[in-house]
Amino acid sequence: MKILVINPNTSQFVTDKVCQVAADAAGSGFEFVGVTGRSGSPIIGTRAECALASKEVMTIAAEHAEGCDGVLLAISFDSGLDVLREILDIPVVGISEAGMSAAMSVSRRFALLTFGDRAVPLYEELVEYYGWKLRCAGVISLPPLSQKELEDTRIVIPKLIDKIEESTQTIRAEAIVLTGAVFAGIAEELRDRVCLPIVDGVVAGVNQLKMLHALNLRKPTSGSLAFPPSKKLVGLPENLTKMFKAFGSKIDRK
Amino acid sequence: MKILVINPNTSQFVTDKVCQVAADAAGSGFEFVGVTGRSGSPIIGTRAECALASKEVMTIAAEHAEGCDGVLLAISFDSGLDVLREILDIPVVGISEAGMSAAMSVSRRFALLTFGDRAVPLYEELVEYYGWKLRCAGVISLPPLSQKELEDTRIVIPKLIDKIEESTQTIRAEAIVLTGAVFAGIAEELRDRVCLPIVDGVVAGVNQLKMLHALNLRKPTSGSLAFPPSKKLVGLPENLTKMFKAFGSKIDRK
Amino acid sequence: MKILVINPNTSQFVTDKVCQVAADAAGSGFEFVGVTGRSGSPIIGTRAECALASKEVMTIAAEHAEGCDGVLLAISFDSGLDVLREILDIPVVGISEAGMSAAMSVSRRFALLTFGDRAVPLYEELVEYYGWKLRCAGVISLPPLSQKELEDTRIVIPKLIDKIEESTQTIRAEAIVLTGAVFAGIAEELRDRVCLPIVDGVVAGVNQLKMLHALNLRKPTSGSLAFPPSKKLVGLPENLTKMFKAFGSKIDRK
Amino acid sequence: MKILVINPNTSQFVTDKVCQVAADAAGSGFEFVGVTGRSGSPIIGTRAECALASKEVMTIAAEHAEGCDGVLLAISFDSGLDVLREILDIPVVGISEAGMSAAMSVSRRFALLTFGDRAVPLYEELVEYYGWKLRCAGVISLPPLSQKELEDTRIVIPKLIDKIEESTQTIRAEAIVLTGAVFAGIAEELRDRVCLPIVDGVVAGVNQLKMLHALNLRKPTSGSLAFPPSKKLVGLPENLTKMFKAFGSKIDRK
Amino acid sequence: MKILVINPNTSQFVTDKVCQVAADAAGSGFEFVGVTGRSGSPIIGTRAECALASKEVMTIAAEHAEGCDGVLLAISFDSGLDVLREILDIPVVGISEAGMSAAMSVSRRFALLTFGDRAVPLYEELVEYYGWKLRCAGVISLPPLSQKELEDTRIVIPKLIDKIEESTQTIRAEAIVLTGAVFAGIAEELRDRVCLPIVDGVVAGVNQLKMLHALNLRKPTSGSLAFPPSKKLVGLPENLTKMFKAFGSKIDRK
Amino acid sequence: MKILVINPNTSQFVTDKVCQVAADAAGSGFEFVGVTGRSGSPIIGTRAECALASKEVMTIAAEHAEGCDGVLLAISFDSGLDVLREILDIPVVGISEAGMSAAMSVSRRFALLTFGDRAVPLYEELVEYYGWKLRCAGVISLPPLSQKELEDTRIVIPKLIDKIEESTQTIRAEAIVLTGAVFAGIAEELRDRVCLPIVDGVVAGVNQLKMLHALNLRKPTSGSLAFPPSKKLVGLPENLTKMFKAFGSKIDRK
Repeated sequence: MKILVINPNTSQFVTDKVCQVAADAAGSGFEFVGVTGRSGSPIIGTRAECALASKEVMTIAAEHAEGCDGVLLAISFDSGLDVLREILDIPVVGISEAGMSAAMSVSRRFALLTFGDRAVPLYEELVEYYGWKLRCAGVISLPPLSQKELEDTRIVIPKLIDKIEESTQTIRAEAIVLTGAVFAGIAEELRDRVCLPIVDGVVAGVNQLKMLHALNLRKPTSGSLAFPPSKKLVGLPENLTKMFKAFGSKIDRK
Repeated sequence: MKILVINPNTSQFVTDKVCQVAADAAGSGFEFVGVTGRSGSPIIGTRAECALASKEVMTIAAEHAEGCDGVLLAISFDSGLDVLREILDIPVVGISEAGMSAAMSVSRRFALLTFGDRAVPLYEELVEYYGWKLRCAGVISLPPLSQKELEDTRIVIPKLIDKIEESTQTIRAEAIVLTGAVFAGIAEELRDRVCLPIVDGVVAGVNQLKMLHALNLRKPTSGSLAFPPSKKLVGLPENLTKMFKAFGSKIDRK
Repeated sequence: MKILVINPNTSQFVTDKVCQVAADAAGSGFEFVGVTGRSGSPIIGTRAECALASKEVMTIAAEHAEGCDGVLLAISFDSGLDVLREILDIPVVGISEAGMSAAMSVSRRFALLTFGDRAVPLYEELVEYYGWKLRCAGVISLPPLSQKELEDTRIVIPKLIDKIEESTQTIRAEAIVLTGAVFAGIAEELRDRVCLPIVDGVVAGVNQLKMLHALNLRKPTSGSLAFPPSKKLVGLPENLTKMFKAFGSKIDRK
Repeated sequence: MKILVINPNTSQFVTDKVCQVAADAAGSGFEFVGVTGRSGSPIIGTRAECALASKEVMTIAAEHAEGCDGVLLAISFDSGLDVLREILDIPVVGISEAGMSAAMSVSRRFALLTFGDRAVPLYEELVEYYGWKLRCAGVISLPPLSQKELEDTRIVIPKLIDKIEESTQTIRAEAIVLTGAVFAGIAEELRDRVCLPIVDGVVAGVNQLKMLHALNLRKPTSGSLAFPPSKKLVGLPENLTKMFKAFGSKIDRK
Repeated sequence: MKILVINPNTSQFVTDKVCQVAADAAGSGFEFVGVTGRSGSPIIGTRAECALASKEVMTIAAEHAEGCDGVLLAISFDSGLDVLREILDIPVVGISEAGMSAAMSVSRRFALLTFGDRAVPLYEELVEYYGWKLRCAGVISLPPLSQKELEDTRIVIPKLIDKIEESTQTIRAEAIVLTGAVFAGIAEELRDRVCLPIVDGVVAGVNQLKMLHALNLRKPTSGSLAFPPSKKLVGLPENLTKMFKAFGSKIDRK
Repeated sequence: MKILVINPNTSQFVTDKVCQVAADAAGSGFEFVGVTGRSGSPIIGTRAECALASKEVMTIAAEHAEGCDGVLLAISFDSGLDVLREILDIPVVGISEAGMSAAMSVSRRFALLTFGDRAVPLYEELVEYYGWKLRCAGVISLPPLSQKELEDTRIVIPKLIDKIEESTQTIRAEAIVLTGAVFAGIAEELRDRVCLPIVDGVVAGVNQLKMLHALNLRKPTSGSLAFPPSKKLVGLPENLTKMFKAFGSKIDRK
């Protein structure tokens, strides 16, 4: 299976890391094609950057999704996730949705873990958008770290452990979802040093793709995730314009 | 006061209509500068088109907001509304948010009225995003009409009247919010022919701008609507890039 | 426009203050007629006092609303607000509803600020009655102050600033609604000394009246805010009795 | 035990009926003192009439509660219920709250049954005020009947049966709460002719008073139902003024 | 009236205590037949133990309910409560449901009080199952005590008092429901030493049974609490098998 | 991997069918060991039968889970699911939880589809227990069919198609989750004949097990799904008693 990894963060190292963790998690028979955003923010963290990401994600999908068997959306706010589900007819998963979904099958209340306060409301709104508020113990955050500190596990790991243990008391979290590609791969290192299950969204996402592939579900032709009606859009990248024009015939074909 | 009217629908006639209704509603002392989207859908109606609109809205704001005293966002899904509130320091209002807000001050349960089924879930999600679900009796929709029919009030008005009267029984609506610029101005014609108050989002929006101007509220420097941290964004229109670069100094200035 | 200001607190100085702030906010072309409650509590703060206020509000409206273009209800619990909307056919606004409504258009989560613990549950229930719980970060309260302290801004302002700044951390408030007429006018003084927008309910209320006037909405003849059926009530002030008797003919007239 | 029955409907026949049903339900050892409202509506059915009722209820309580062991509030909107709990230190129950509470102990979802559409939103708001929305299948209503029809059980009973049976299908009700004093005593007649339990609020209320008496709970001195602080109220009936003045010493006594 | 007290905790002293408190609360004319679980946990406190309890409760009911006028379920998680309501046609009450129900009639927000952290999520889920989350200020817990400490009121009472007083500040509780048979009878001792009403679930339960008896409600023949369809179950105690076989004829008889 | 399939329905043909569908879905490298309930109902459909199932599920787990790598719980009410997660330290999935989880990753609102009205409230409560109410369009049911009709796809399929298509209009469902083992395998046949994705819970469950295996999450030692404290249980099957006795040492080992 060929999986398109769309990373709207304009940072190649994030794409690389996600692709590597995804490939390790997927095992043989999988090819991951990573595409990094060409416009937008290096590390997305605000409403405006999320909005830019949604369009970038569409642009990348219009250019690269043809011939792929699924899409792994590698942005922790799942920006553009349901948009992709609307315009594509292959399975699409987001790393935070997948992570939370997995966490709900091993706990009654999960917490999301992030760096910095700025994004906390955005994650809360994401949880509300998914309708999962009753299952979310809260969004916990560590003070922001420099890129250098983030890469030094001797610094990061102890901070994470303390925060996670604390969350079992303060908000009674029963599982932790690590948000963001920066955390990809770190769950394994934490595994035996904290008292809760720690979910890696990339690993969860890859497996959710496998699940959707196994279920072999049809593209809906009714509801908000059916193809949009065919339309003549203007001022957009060529592939995107073409895609919107073609929706009508795609629906007919079904 | 100079108000920027951002219409991400790529249809000039929508911009014109909204500007005219807005100017009529505002009275003297107001100038409305309408800007029509250059990229995206002529009439926005799906998730994907909303996502495209959010970026278009940002692009227009980055180019035209300088020197304006407020922004009226003229897209019925309020696409990009909180994004603009994040990146600008002048009041920003959306026609649906303003319409629902007004409806809640004359009723206990409002209904949104639209054409076609496709957008119903999107409006429901908008209501949920605003946290106003308990006040919303539902989203009601008329079968889609052709542009020609839409413009013939002898056809549209009787259909609207029937649907509105019906909603007082089926979902016990107590007020109606007309969604979409296509409805701008039509509330007045319905006024004495139905039993409920009918809210025009454009008129509500203009007055909400006046309210915010009168309140003279400061731009927050904390929370999810403060300016984003200064960042180097890539691949974006020049004005947008410049805006993001400048956020840091703007915050300092405060 | 002639606006009736109904203050069911039996304290003339509150009426005076509200009328002054309202007049300053409204600008020219507005006349504010303040009427102070003749029965009930000097400063309303409990369930029982709110219930007394609701009737007092009706009594004042029955006597004074004739010939007015709108009502500004100057009691922070909005006591009797929807009752007035039921029995009158002019726009009616409450200072807390208007304040929260404005706060929601500049923030995702507002906090209400009050003095003393006793009224906190009442404000929470008010928020729930409006269905706005998801948008409310909480109700925060300062220890009660003496009337003398309340009037000394050198004492009050620093306490308010500390409490507001604290709320950005503890409950992640993004805007503050000052409750109570006692706060009327103080938002301006706080404006540049805290990091959040501070909403004055009286200023918001006056502008909401302007909005409703501009929208020119009809009195509903269906739903819970239509005129009640005509009835013969007993034991009430003359104007009130007359009002209820007249509802039937009013409905017919419509 | 001496129970004060407060009926703010200004209809003596309602008071009489409730007292009789209550006495039958209570058995020996109980005395029911019925007091009918002297000001307000003969049959309460709108927001305004409920607000009038709340004050009337307080006035009656201030005059008659002394020496009683409990209060049965005989108005189906439970108007003034929590107000009485605030200002009195004897158990107070409302017929709808008690009816719903009983219904929840024999079903997962109850429906409220009333006559006419006007009051439906008021009952829905009552359910929301109690926080019981998830347990309420809905509020169902029969077309209004004349007083003569209401008293002819050959007319009323078949209509009720049809409506109740229908509700098991349409909204999957599992129990029915009859609202209003007009229904007092009718549950027994329906008992074996419908498939669901039918709860009479008066019978439930009397038994809830017994329960509270048995629990021998103390008056809280903290929270929103503690006595209000002592205050000098103006323009009120003498007993009410005296009551508010005395709260301070009552609290000290505790 | 003969009341079956089912205690699925396999501890006879719990059954004895509950029966004694129940008898004291019920007064004359009541006989309480206590049956202690023969399989399961001595003091139930986890999901697994609750599940075991549900079956034990059914088994005991099948064997002992014949000839009884009601069932008092004496396990603080109300395990099997709605199951009994499904399979029996006499009133069934649970001590926590009854306790919370009573607490809601003397407060706006109750707290549940327990020992140890483990059961806190279970009580929260119970509150959610009843749909009463909006009325619950929270579940508070004291550190677990040894059986000896639990029986020494000089140790327990002061700890309870501190925790309860604290809860008026931290979560603004307005009433306390003591969970668990271990607390039976202790409410009386706390009564005059804390500022809130303290509800004893056993006393509440007995009185709720009286209420249901007085209401004389019919067994529903529709909905999720009607008798199940007659079925041939295997591998169960004889009485239970017989009960399921008989459901069909029971329904016909109605 | 060896997966224990626990079917508390006492019908061997259900176990066989689930095991077969599971094996087909899992591919090579998987062994499914099906165990059928020995006590309880042939086809579980009521509260009482679910309660019996929960204990049967525990009993089977205590006897057969040793040496397995995961558990697939094959009862559409997921009876005992979180109980197994508490007492086992291998991944456990339920077919309805897994089905809904998958449905939420291809739609915004799923519907559950069942036969007969009786179980509808139980499925609704299940959805509420998972906190997924906002994502559930409703539970739809077909009239009950005889076993013979159920097995004749020429009868069943057209009925299912009609019901599913109808649900896109009436409740705006965007995906369908088939409940119950009886539906196992039928999703494939419906795939190209309806307009929505149809989720088979067994296929979803098998893949969720794979996901949890890939995530390699630790057993929590905190929260409501940690092992219970070691206890001496009485009157239970030997393996179950032993399991509870051993929890203490298991916790220590971690």
